[in-house]
Amino acid sequence: MGNNPLQQLMNPKSVATVGAGNNPMKMGAIQALSIIKDGFPGKFYPIHPTEKEVFGYKAYSSALDLPEAPDLVMFVLPAPLVVQILEDFGKIGTKRAIVITAGFGETGPAGKELEQQLRETAGRYGIRFLGPNCMGIINSDLPLNVTVMPLTGPPGCLGMASQSGTYITQTLPYLQRRGIRFSKAISVGNEGDIDIIDALEYLGADEQTRAVTLYIEGLKDSRRFLETARKITPHKPVLAQYVGGTDAGARAGSSHTGAMAGPDYLYDGLLKQAGIIRVNSIEELYYQGWALATQPRLKGRRVAVITNSGGPGTAMANACNEGGLEVPAFSDKLQAGLRKHLPAHGSSGNPVDLTFHLSAEALSTTIPELIMKSGEVDGIVMHGLMGSGFMKVIYPHLADLVGDMDPEDFAARQIGNIDEPLSLPGKYGLPLIMSSFFGRDDNFTAAYQDNNTPVFDGPEKAARSMLALHRYNMVRERPDRQAAELPARSEEAVEIIEKALCSGHRVLDEYSSKKIMAAYGVPVSEDSLAHSVEEAASAAGKIGYPLALKGCSPEVTHKTGRGLIHLGLRDEDDLRRAYRAVVGAAGQETAVLLSKMIKGDREVMAGMTRHEGFGPCVLFGLGGVFAEVLNDTTFRLAPLGRADALEMVGGIRAAAMLESFRGMPQADRDALAGILQVVGSLGLLHPEIAEVDLNPIIISGAEPVVVDALIILNENEG
Amino acid sequence: MGNNPLQQLMNPKSVATVGAGNNPMKMGAIQALSIIKDGFPGKFYPIHPTEKEVFGYKAYSSALDLPEAPDLVMFVLPAPLVVQILEDFGKIGTKRAIVITAGFGETGPAGKELEQQLRETAGRYGIRFLGPNCMGIINSDLPLNVTVMPLTGPPGCLGMASQSGTYITQTLPYLQRRGIRFSKAISVGNEGDIDIIDALEYLGADEQTRAVTLYIEGLKDSRRFLETARKITPHKPVLAQYVGGTDAGARAGSSHTGAMAGPDYLYDGLLKQAGIIRVNSIEELYYQGWALATQPRLKGRRVAVITNSGGPGTAMANACNEGGLEVPAFSDKLQAGLRKHLPAHGSSGNPVDLTFHLSAEALSTTIPELIMKSGEVDGIVMHGLMGSGFMKVIYPHLADLVGDMDPEDFAARQIGNIDEPLSLPGKYGLPLIMSSFFGRDDNFTAAYQDNNTPVFDGPEKAARSMLALHRYNMVRERPDRQAAELPARSEEAVEIIEKALCSGHRVLDEYSSKKIMAAYGVPVSEDSLAHSVEEAASAAGKIGYPLALKGCSPEVTHKTGRGLIHLGLRDEDDLRRAYRAVVGAAGQETAVLLSKMIKGDREVMAGMTRHEGFGPCVLFGLGGVFAEVLNDTTFRLAPLGRADALEMVGGIRAAAMLESFRGMPQADRDALAGILQVVGSLGLLHPEIAEVDLNPIIISGAEPVVVDALIILNENEG
Repeated sequence: MGNNPLQQLMNPKSVATVGAGNNPMKMGAIQALSIIKDGFPGKFYPIHPTEKEVFGYKAYSSALDLPEAPDLVMFVLPAPLVVQILEDFGKIGTKRAIVITAGFGETGPAGKELEQQLRETAGRYGIRFLGPNCMGIINSDLPLNVTVMPLTGPPGCLGMASQSGTYITQTLPYLQRRGIRFSKAISVGNEGDIDIIDALEYLGADEQTRAVTLYIEGLKDSRRFLETARKITPHKPVLAQYVGGTDAGARAGSSHTGAMAGPDYLYDGLLKQAGIIRVNSIEELYYQGWALATQPRLKGRRVAVITNSGGPGTAMANACNEGGLEVPAFSDKLQAGLRKHLPAHGSSGNPVDLTFHLSAEALSTTIPELIMKSGEVDGIVMHGLMGSGFMKVIYPHLADLVGDMDPEDFAARQIGNIDEPLSLPGKYGLPLIMSSFFGRDDNFTAAYQDNNTPVFDGPEKAARSMLALHRYNMVRERPDRQAAELPARSEEAVEIIEKALCSGHRVLDEYSSKKIMAAYGVPVSEDSLAHSVEEAASAAGKIGYPLALKGCSPEVTHKTGRGLIHLGLRDEDDLRRAYRAVVGAAGQETAVLLSKMIKGDREVMAGMTRHEGFGPCVLFGLGGVFAEVLNDTTFRLAPLGRADALEMVGGIRAAAMLESFRGMPQADRDALAGILQVVGSLGLLHPEIAEVDLNPIIISGAEPVVVDALIILNENEG
Repeated sequence: MGNNPLQQLMNPKSVATVGAGNNPMKMGAIQALSIIKDGFPGKFYPIHPTEKEVFGYKAYSSALDLPEAPDLVMFVLPAPLVVQILEDFGKIGTKRAIVITAGFGETGPAGKELEQQLRETAGRYGIRFLGPNCMGIINSDLPLNVTVMPLTGPPGCLGMASQSGTYITQTLPYLQRRGIRFSKAISVGNEGDIDIIDALEYLGADEQTRAVTLYIEGLKDSRRFLETARKITPHKPVLAQYVGGTDAGARAGSSHTGAMAGPDYLYDGLLKQAGIIRVNSIEELYYQGWALATQPRLKGRRVAVITNSGGPGTAMANACNEGGLEVPAFSDKLQAGLRKHLPAHGSSGNPVDLTFHLSAEALSTTIPELIMKSGEVDGIVMHGLMGSGFMKVIYPHLADLVGDMDPEDFAARQIGNIDEPLSLPGKYGLPLIMSSFFGRDDNFTAAYQDNNTPVFDGPEKAARSMLALHRYNMVRERPDRQAAELPARSEEAVEIIEKALCSGHRVLDEYSSKKIMAAYGVPVSEDSLAHSVEEAASAAGKIGYPLALKGCSPEVTHKTGRGLIHLGLRDEDDLRRAYRAVVGAAGQETAVLLSKMIKGDREVMAGMTRHEGFGPCVLFGLGGVFAEVLNDTTFRLAPLGRADALEMVGGIRAAAMLESFRGMPQADRDALAGILQVVGSLGLLHPEIAEVDLNPIIISGAEPVVVDALIILNENEG
């Protein structure tokens, strides 16, 4: 973190702009105004070829004329001019830059070339830069805002790093209307130098930032992302939206910032492994991020639902329950206490439903405090508190009756002291998330929002934000993610691989593949290789029936459905028939593999594949012939720690199959996790291996046994 | 529909209120004001014990004093007084009532009794009523608004029937801010008489209503709901949120309106069968409902994404693609045309990204029209159009520079004639759904919303609303849902059931269960029942090895894991061993069933269960020993039409397993559908049957064969 380039970039004492003039209908000028008007306490130096002044600030025609080297320079002029002027700043000693200008790598080969020049020039002078093709930064604490929208309100505590500038800029008024405030926000653009991982690292360490949100179209180095995120998520929540997982999303992202997207399942595994809470819309990113940034930990699963309306109360209770939170019925004692403050037709269980009425004190203060005091829940979601918003809405109907009554006054009368309800969350340390159909024109909505209690515009949003707190709790409670230690490289494995490479084979046969797995301690079915029917018969006698016989050669990979697998052979007659069938099916003499039949109804699979930007990835899934159609898989990046591997084992939809049921014992999850760890290690220990496929792994009794294995080597190496 | 009680209730010529006085801080008075102030064109008669006038209208102390029988009476006075006064209205001939008053069935036994009295009194006078414990109705066309919130704006086209009054009332200002307008809205409360199904039927036939939304906590008669909905969904979209599917949701709903909830999977099947689009939040219900109410049909899958910002464009493209829509790359010709209107670093593919700039004409008019004309897409989602909203936001930074420039004027100058872009959707007949982070304070947002083009506050919301149009298209294109014809009752089945009942058995053994299935034409494995080992050996000879042998008696139901099933017997030795084992395991002499071994790797299951309010339901799912842990099932109400049954077969997660793969042929879906239809018919033809369980059904080659069957009879009948 000491070296994080954003530390300096986000906290300059002086800022120069290049290209911003005095026409307030131009983007650059609007951005310069944001610096000037939003309270940046440092020096401001506009560079402009013709203007003498920019918005009252002395303008300079060149960096070389400046009285000092500014800490930060921002470029808003056309792409072809940026590199040369950056050179000037390099010469005077400026070390940080923001390149707002578009028209670089995202536009094609010529733009890529220009971006490369930018990088080279910056590198020559030790300049670290953000962009190009970005919207800049916001530091609400300094303050410094270089974006096109004004910064309003006091500093917030939600951090954001985004591959879309819009989400830190165009949304500012949207966020302001919802009471959500950034601590720091960073638009990374094309990531010509500083990237979203640097931004994540910076925000992870930033004290003002209490939760980090990420908008991701694609990552260049998922491994570095994982390492960075893992250090942050145990103590600070990180949330992410990833939109590059479909064909259309990948194509759109590529023409937007040149981001290299990857399949959704890889990113899904990456985010899980990193302990990042994944969301599916920008709204969820902001809302759930804000809830996590502002609220204390949800220390258990028990949630109270308080409402003045049955529908939203029911919807909140249902959403909480669906997501794994409990909405426990309150004790008789607590219910008796609550009933004193409820109308006769209200409900005192949980949800507490006050039903629609105009007094706010019970809903805002009495009821929540009784519940917080009780110790019966760990958090509260509440719907329906309203004051002046309601009065303003119905005012047209009442105006001629109530005359000069001011809606705000009326609302103030409803509850004597708004400080009391606002103080409750702090006093009792419980998370409180609210829902209201009234915006900030309502005095309660505004007061709670300004007091860092989220008020969202829908009951399900409040409930699902509470679920985000619960999800983060699960991340915090995960076992330690220690860096996995790789085993020593097996000489036997190296030999097998080298032999195959020498003989020009990219595909290791089942026998060799299993030998490698066994060399790393993976339990495989007891096998014997035979090259003639007599050898087979003799080997069979040693292993014992029933047996499986399979064609075995590098040429024979997809054996199912080709008559190359014969299971359940009971005696030598069976064996001889099967041998002849395999030779017939293969169309040539072939080695055969004899394996002891492994009994077990449960089949899983594991594998290793390599992906650009990800390196070796481990797959775990439901196995057997239906693996491909059921597609119940989960991915992680290698190497896997024990906790990672166990999380994978428990992370498939069919994970319940590994429990004890129908007379089958609980599967040995540790043994399965061990296999997954080895599979991941293979990718790192043996760069020659392109792919590992263990399918099926049969759960025999409790123990997993690899029954078929296939290792494929890299084309380049082969 | 001619008899639908809401036809009269929603369109009265005269309305009386009972209980509303002149204190504008009371709910009843506020509701009376809504009638008076929101333009109800008919007569208004307040009934009040003491007031002489209510808000300037002559008040009557009793219904009996009224000059005429009002078409509709609304009660807002305490529960104990309602019944008696309803009686008065009955006497004078009023036929429709709304009981806003709470404190009836939702509060417990005494309230239930009171609600029963209400029903009886109403029934005596032929009065049909809404409520009790409801928030009333809105008819924006008449207009008549009896709720606590004012009605604003012109009439809309979105209908709603809700088991929560809040969702037609408290949300009115929320909806107004989003440009969403009701046609008719109905709060059904406790459904003491008129229920949500009546409301669905009414809205389905209402010409002003172009899409129907339902908020559901529980249905009393799912079968009637299904029949009603099925008539509507082929020509008008219906959307629903169901929140009673968890423990907490069910408990909350029950204390809210006394609604009887059921498990989520049953409601999920019901909604699918009805062709209703299910959503998971009130916001989705409104947004997607509004999109469907206002937009023409999406006639294909091809969508254009137009944006002035890469992030939202990528997010929209990704969300569309994820949900099954295509975002096709445009033709070279179209792209060449588009590029003339784009900056150099914009994108002309699909998404079209204009990048951030301040001219609105290309985004609002030129680009969409080129795309609409091209015929290359079926619908458009667009993000980022903004005018005065943006100007208002940045105004504080510009005020001293631009002086007296009015933001609205500025916005108007950006685009000469807003009528032209607004006319495009109508001119080309394509659905257009927009996203903007600016609300109605932006001139474009307001103009589009008022022109029935949705503008939603998030790119994913626009994209997912387009997906709702796609989902509805799938409903419209479903094969005809003809009422299924039941087969004739099988005398053989009747005999088997009667015999079991006479002998006091609730559980039919596998042999008898299969006989019943076979009697209805369901393919079952070839079986023979044997009562001794010699009989078994002789039967085995006839059937031929390999064989399965299973213990078979009404006492023996869960055979797996108890040593009562022996598969793959290859000869008489095997058979005798297995026979002895079964007798040993059963602890007594027992009949055994010999069955030909059915080969096939694919196993599914089917079943019938009965549920309160649902009647017989049919289950289809992945079968075999893992059925319970994988829990991949789908439900429908019996009887099933052929199209219903086929939709079930294709509706499980593992449906791809039934395709042709790995040398297995495509499963005979028609045969599977036929089995499901029989299973459903059994529930209707034989009320004595409580439960049917066919598991597994093995797909042998292409053909499904029932390998194990269990029929359980009703306790009452047995």
